[in-house]
Amino acid sequence: MPSFNILVLGGDHIGPEVVGEAVKVLRAAEAHPAVSKKNVSFNLDHDLLGGQSIDAHGIPLTPEVVEKAKKSHAVLFGAVGGPKWGMTGALRPETSVLDLRKALNCWANIRPAKVPSPGVAKCSPVKESVVSGTDFIVLRENCGGVYFGEKKETPDYAHDVWGYHRWEIERIARMAAYLAKKHGGAAGPSKITSIDKANVLAVCRLWRDAVAKVHDAEFPEIPLTNQLSDSLALIMVKNPRSLNGIVLCDNIFGDLFSDEAAAIIGSLGFSPSACLAGIPGEEKTTGMYEPSHGSAPDLAPNKANPIATIQSAAMMLRYSCDLDFVADAIDEAISIALDDKSAGGLEIRTGDIGGSASTTEMGDAVVSAL
Amino acid sequence: MPSFNILVLGGDHIGPEVVGEAVKVLRAAEAHPAVSKKNVSFNLDHDLLGGQSIDAHGIPLTPEVVEKAKKSHAVLFGAVGGPKWGMTGALRPETSVLDLRKALNCWANIRPAKVPSPGVAKCSPVKESVVSGTDFIVLRENCGGVYFGEKKETPDYAHDVWGYHRWEIERIARMAAYLAKKHGGAAGPSKITSIDKANVLAVCRLWRDAVAKVHDAEFPEIPLTNQLSDSLALIMVKNPRSLNGIVLCDNIFGDLFSDEAAAIIGSLGFSPSACLAGIPGEEKTTGMYEPSHGSAPDLAPNKANPIATIQSAAMMLRYSCDLDFVADAIDEAISIALDDKSAGGLEIRTGDIGGSASTTEMGDAVVSAL
Ligand SMILES: CC(C)[C@H](C(=O)O)[C@@H](O)C(=O)O
Ligand SMILES: CC(C)[C@H](C(=O)O)[C@@H](O)C(=O)O
Repeated sequence: MPSFNILVLGGDHIGPEVVGEAVKVLRAAEAHPAVSKKNVSFNLDHDLLGGQSIDAHGIPLTPEVVEKAKKSHAVLFGAVGGPKWGMTGALRPETSVLDLRKALNCWANIRPAKVPSPGVAKCSPVKESVVSGTDFIVLRENCGGVYFGEKKETPDYAHDVWGYHRWEIERIARMAAYLAKKHGGAAGPSKITSIDKANVLAVCRLWRDAVAKVHDAEFPEIPLTNQLSDSLALIMVKNPRSLNGIVLCDNIFGDLFSDEAAAIIGSLGFSPSACLAGIPGEEKTTGMYEPSHGSAPDLAPNKANPIATIQSAAMMLRYSCDLDFVADAIDEAISIALDDKSAGGLEIRTGDIGGSASTTEMGDAVVSAL
Repeated sequence: MPSFNILVLGGDHIGPEVVGEAVKVLRAAEAHPAVSKKNVSFNLDHDLLGGQSIDAHGIPLTPEVVEKAKKSHAVLFGAVGGPKWGMTGALRPETSVLDLRKALNCWANIRPAKVPSPGVAKCSPVKESVVSGTDFIVLRENCGGVYFGEKKETPDYAHDVWGYHRWEIERIARMAAYLAKKHGGAAGPSKITSIDKANVLAVCRLWRDAVAKVHDAEFPEIPLTNQLSDSLALIMVKNPRSLNGIVLCDNIFGDLFSDEAAAIIGSLGFSPSACLAGIPGEEKTTGMYEPSHGSAPDLAPNKANPIATIQSAAMMLRYSCDLDFVADAIDEAISIALDDKSAGGLEIRTGDIGGSASTTEMGDAVVSAL
């Protein structure tokens, strides 16, 4: 009777709305005969993060939330931030996400870039012929690099240190290998494209060297190529399919390229993410699952696209609960809910992808397709 | 009788080829009655840079070249680098570009993103409806930031310091204001979009503050907005027209976003650049002009697209020689050379944009359109 403890942190603005839909889908999955006959159950606990936590407790992330998160199998998170709390003060909602990722030691951020349903390929600003068939995962190192380097802040000079230890690079390269195998499936491992700016940055020369060494020693059978960050910015637009496989990035490059990938796929509303602290199955870890988008303070209530959060919940089932068959069913239900009516879909779409459905209608459509 | 001393540095692989076409166009412009009646002349001196310089002199940039460059009105440069010289050794061709930019103190890198001819809008991987009308300039700070920060390189740890002084940010913001006025023309100044990751990086909080202060004090009439770097990566694909105006970036963001912009425009072959050490007219400076693309070691001879280099030569006339009317004429000739035959163009295009013309044929077409 597998029972999973999940901490649900909605966050600010659209965060709680989109998380609400993901919870609805989780509950529907739990009630499904194929799942309930295995006695799978999800114990959900809810708490505050970001601006909501600042308002209630004076800080964006409380020690209680950190403790709860550590005891959970997974955290399902929405989004934080908004003009109310500012962006440059000492108490920034954004620090809560970074601090929680750090507290859970979630050093691997997995951000798939794949059109979730054939019917919405046309939503992409990129030509359908260019985007169709795109299926890569941006794997972002999430606990190091310039995000966590020493900072200096004076009125006339400021800096951040962009550094990596070899072991930090090695472990994310191993995660890339794990994902390449999972992504490639029966056809054999997908290729890994490792991103750096080794022609300029010392930290990137170490990156390239560490990736190459761990590759040659531990998974030489997986195809590996290096790509300069500026070239990647271009290739991702020009020929995204050529990246199919794993795109391995450091923290700040991963931040940028997962957004660029989301644009190419057609919407941030289709970009889920998982943050892991170890390779599933090998290490006991708390996974953190969240849409790649922000809290969209300007959006009217019940207008946000909940798909990325529902996809994130599916990733949670895949990586933290070993329930691939349920994750597959949710991904399939998402595809049906979004697809054209002429192709047998429900054709329910929110405003960001040219439809007029509300957040709740979108969630309901996935539940009914399930 | 204005006479301009121009140092021509072809560089490696396709570098000398594309620079050769730009020189051909310059000579044609010089011979044109409208120009020759003003007695304008270009004195060209040629020298080596990058890998070629390593082979000849053992170093990628000689002090002689630096001295010559400093004495010139402008440097017209191709591209450097290639597998022969490696990317991670002590003698990297790439350092020559960075060192020359630094020696000339070329702190402002101007990279326009505009489809050069209506006929080639369809070459973009982005839908024509999305890309048409795009007309922005990526302005990249070029002498500071993580490119030139202190480096640490050990076998198990490496870092680069990503720092800025307030004065470095202020001067590039002033350049943005100059360009916004020039770009907007009679219609009034274009808007400035300043890029940072102020929600995470200390250096970016200084960036945002310095840009805001100099804006409010010196050019409050120019519209200014801030955009987070990850959001920009997305917006540039989704709605590039919304950026029309000046996109103000630090060094590493500018490196990435000028390549992303090139992809959206349809080819790096359409992406010229200027590097300046001061606001034209206000300060005496040596400008450096180069295509944004690299040396393309894999390309067969006489296959490269020389348009970006020819456009760079036009920028040279605009910013270093005060010959806007000649620059306009070259841009117009480029448009005609590339445009569809049905629209009165010559429809000459190289392989990167779906044609089969050689480098020299493309250059000849621009000369004949001129
Ligand atoms: C909110 C912000 C701190 C965060 C980041 O930069 O990591 C976000 O952009 C993301 O990608 O999850
Ligand atoms: C060659 C390389 C050092 C250079 C840079 O990163 O500045 C190039 O990418 C550019 O954009 O001009």
